[in-house]
Amino acid sequence: NETAKAALGRATWKLLHTVTLRFPENPTPDEREALDSYIRLTSRVYPCGECAAELQELLKVYPPQTSSRRAASLWLCSLHNQVNERLNKPEYDCSQLSTEYDCGC
Amino acid sequence: NETAKAALGRATWKLLHTVTLRFPENPTPDEREALDSYIRLTSRVYPCGECAAELQELLKVYPPQTSSRRAASLWLCSLHNQVNERLNKPEYDCSQLSTEYDCGC
Ligand SMILES: Cc1cc2nc3c(=O)[nH]c(=O)nc-3n(C[C@H](O)[C@H](O)[C@H](O)COP(=O)(O)OP(=O)(O)OC[C@H]3O[C@@H](n4cnc5c(N)ncnc54)[C@H](O)[C@@H]3O)c2cc1C
Ligand SMILES: Cc1cc2nc3c(=O)[nH]c(=O)nc-3n(C[C@H](O)[C@H](O)[C@H](O)COP(=O)(O)OP(=O)(O)OC[C@H]3O[C@@H](n4cnc5c(N)ncnc54)[C@H](O)[C@@H]3O)c2cc1C
Repeated sequence: NETAKAALGRATWKLLHTVTLRFPENPTPDEREALDSYIRLTSRVYPCGECAAELQELLKVYPPQTSSRRAASLWLCSLHNQVNERLNKPEYDCSQLSTEYDCGC
Repeated sequence: NETAKAALGRATWKLLHTVTLRFPENPTPDEREALDSYIRLTSRVYPCGECAAELQELLKVYPPQTSSRRAASLWLCSLHNQVNERLNKPEYDCSQLSTEYDCGC
């Protein structure tokens, strides 16, 4: 069921991008560790097995960047673009990020 | 912006319910630990501060249940119902769970 898989992917990207765009500008070591673990655990519990495996491979080559909000959000944008490329989707322009992922919080 | 907050909530619940409904029937200690940490970290990185604080309070009273797929998914359903109650939303019938959260994977 490709429709369900796509809907789950959209929900997940939305959450992840919003998380990184609300990540502290100047995170503490503890906050950095929390985001790093959260992303790595996402790749373990993610319910689409093929997607989880791809994310694990990507994380080996592109480990999470957590030094700042900007570093984290641009890192995730670029990771998402790697997935887009593999799925023959257009590359997203990462300079638009902050306008698209308002979380209303 | 309440619309953005609600859309983020929907995306997050969808991901979390799908995760628990694909959690192994008979998880290893390692898999149990991964789910437990993942849920606790969600409450730390979640970008809506008021929501994150509520989730942290709920997790103190209702710690994640990870002994099986059934335990985890019913636990999360009941947690979501606690949030529903606080927000004056109708209670969800947890016996419908498995039909609603197909992930196509
Ligand atoms: C970790 C992960 C791995 C996945 N692996 C696979 C896989 O192996 N096979 C598979 O079939 N599906 C996979 N998916 C699902 C896939 O990435 C899409 O989510 C799904 O195909 C729906 O695509 P979409 O075109 O609606 O846009 P999505 O890729 O879901 O993106 C949603 C929206 O985000 C915006 N966006 C697009 N690119 C970016 C970017 N780089 N940065 C910020 N915002 C962006 C756009 O507005 C887009 O409409 C994976 C999903 C995740 C979360
Ligand atoms: C951890 C967390 C804490 C939150 N705290 C707040 C808060 O403090 N204040 C605030 O304004 N918003 C909060 N939200 C957002 C809120 O829970 C809703 O997501 C949002 O209001 C949109 O609601 P909705 O009516 O579209 O349905 P949602 O509650 O988002 O549910 C989405 C869909 O899931 C199904 N569903 C409903 N209940 C259950 C259940 N028990 N089990 C399984 N499936 C179910 C229904 O089909 C529903 O349409 C929180 C979200 C999360 C993830």
